[in-house]
Amino acid sequence: MTNPRISGVLAPVVTPFGADGAPDAERLARHCQWLVSQNVGLAVFGTNSEANSMSLDERLDLLERLVAAGVPPARMMPGTGCCAITDTARLTARAVNLGCAGVLMLPPFYYKGVSEEGLYRSYASVIEKVGDARLRIYLYHIPPVAQVGISLTLIERLLKAYPGTVAGIKDSSGDWSNTKAMLERFGTGGFDVFVGSESFLLANMRSGGVGCISATANVNPGPIDRLFREWQSPRAEEMQAALDVTRAIFQRHPMIAALKCAIARWSGDPEWTRVRPPLVELDTAASDALVTALEASGFDMPNLRAGPTT
Amino acid sequence: MTNPRISGVLAPVVTPFGADGAPDAERLARHCQWLVSQNVGLAVFGTNSEANSMSLDERLDLLERLVAAGVPPARMMPGTGCCAITDTARLTARAVNLGCAGVLMLPPFYYKGVSEEGLYRSYASVIEKVGDARLRIYLYHIPPVAQVGISLTLIERLLKAYPGTVAGIKDSSGDWSNTKAMLERFGTGGFDVFVGSESFLLANMRSGGVGCISATANVNPGPIDRLFREWQSPRAEEMQAALDVTRAIFQRHPMIAALKCAIARWSGDPEWTRVRPPLVELDTAASDALVTALEASGFDMPNLRAGPTT
Repeated sequence: MTNPRISGVLAPVVTPFGADGAPDAERLARHCQWLVSQNVGLAVFGTNSEANSMSLDERLDLLERLVAAGVPPARMMPGTGCCAITDTARLTARAVNLGCAGVLMLPPFYYKGVSEEGLYRSYASVIEKVGDARLRIYLYHIPPVAQVGISLTLIERLLKAYPGTVAGIKDSSGDWSNTKAMLERFGTGGFDVFVGSESFLLANMRSGGVGCISATANVNPGPIDRLFREWQSPRAEEMQAALDVTRAIFQRHPMIAALKCAIARWSGDPEWTRVRPPLVELDTAASDALVTALEASGFDMPNLRAGPTT
Repeated sequence: MTNPRISGVLAPVVTPFGADGAPDAERLARHCQWLVSQNVGLAVFGTNSEANSMSLDERLDLLERLVAAGVPPARMMPGTGCCAITDTARLTARAVNLGCAGVLMLPPFYYKGVSEEGLYRSYASVIEKVGDARLRIYLYHIPPVAQVGISLTLIERLLKAYPGTVAGIKDSSGDWSNTKAMLERFGTGGFDVFVGSESFLLANMRSGGVGCISATANVNPGPIDRLFREWQSPRAEEMQAALDVTRAIFQRHPMIAALKCAIARWSGDPEWTRVRPPLVELDTAASDALVTALEASGFDMPNLRAGPTT
């Protein structure tokens, strides 16, 4: 018997780094626990997690530590797509063995302008290497960053070859017409569409989607989850508008640094501000401007204590 | 006492894969030895090597096997730039310890639109982590693929902070005005400029550059090296024109698959045609067209036997 599909709101969980630059498993576990307490799932190792700025070994180690710390794998959809299919297969297999609900898989993203046949072979090769019926892949379409995207015809081919295993997609194109096309062509056939921003959450739910996986779910999980649960309420448009206001404040800054700045401020834990190169943390002026704007908007992160347990 | 700087023509050595998809160290060593016999250096783990389609462990292992097989490290400039600076530092340190002449270092390439400060920190962090006076870094500027480029002001800052360690650049922008600007600003100060295509070799040598690192050096090493050595000859323009004709034949096809097709044909070793996803090998029609055009042009790979020694 298979588990029910994961749905709702997921956070691409930001990764804390220690003074030595190493990923901080304890702080990460604590932030994961807070997100779960807010009813938000865990797309660890996403773009906003600086996943590709970590080595494969660092990711394998972090994933095991999270599960060992009691973070529920049934609420996890780790990002596992690397440039090398050997790496993708290894991280994916570990996620499956740890009981994760699914994996979010970038296409190989170094070479640009690759053929659909090449992308098909990439996914097929990983699926064959992992060779596990529990595997559920969510394709990760984020052309603004990866530059290599997932076309409708690629989805069609993968769904035909690997039904059940190819479980859905995260569409971070920012192009609603693309999301809509995916929903219309595949949304009724067991292919779960997550939007990559809560800005499209209401539209997605109204069109048959299953939720969103959004950067700002790291900091604004409760209200985003509420819209997911109450999208049919008469107040849904109003809730969507409020989410958009908060998101817009974060979008005035580089997103990852801004998320970490907010977590540091609302948890009282300045360790959180660190990012790994090539990213750069917010400077004092930007940091102050972000916090001031958030406070003025009534933003809060209730019960957040993102530091270590000690 | 430090070794002399590497210069001349280098091949981003194509990587053979076995039937199981694993890198084939023996065939690779043999191709490296042939290239060295043609007076061409070895930029293993470049874009044309499908380096980013291999895991870090696969690259570490291959590098050690090449040196163990007698491939001279003084002729090697392995590509070591990964998305994660921890990976870049580890592979770079190994290359230094094995005695490689230098390393060719991509900037972290997952995030797009990153700041110059962030790229500076990436390189600085790797240099500090490796912490070895023998390290010589050649920056790798290939915006058509990596999308993340190396600006003149970044070079200036790195040269000031790490003179001697930051030894040069490979400019694969395909934009001669960019190469010329690098040569004019930094070319007389111990900053060695390689062009990323032999199409610009003569221009580069006339402007103070030190050579080229080019895909087609895998298959046409002798004639390219000859232009490098005889660029001041009255026949230089003619030699350049002949190189351009050969290059143009390869450029009718996806380059990596075409290089491997030619090696397979001229060595009589069909194992060479394999590529790793997301790349795709040439189909029969393309393969036949390539070989026919090359033969008609008088192309040859003298004394090539790229298979295993057994």
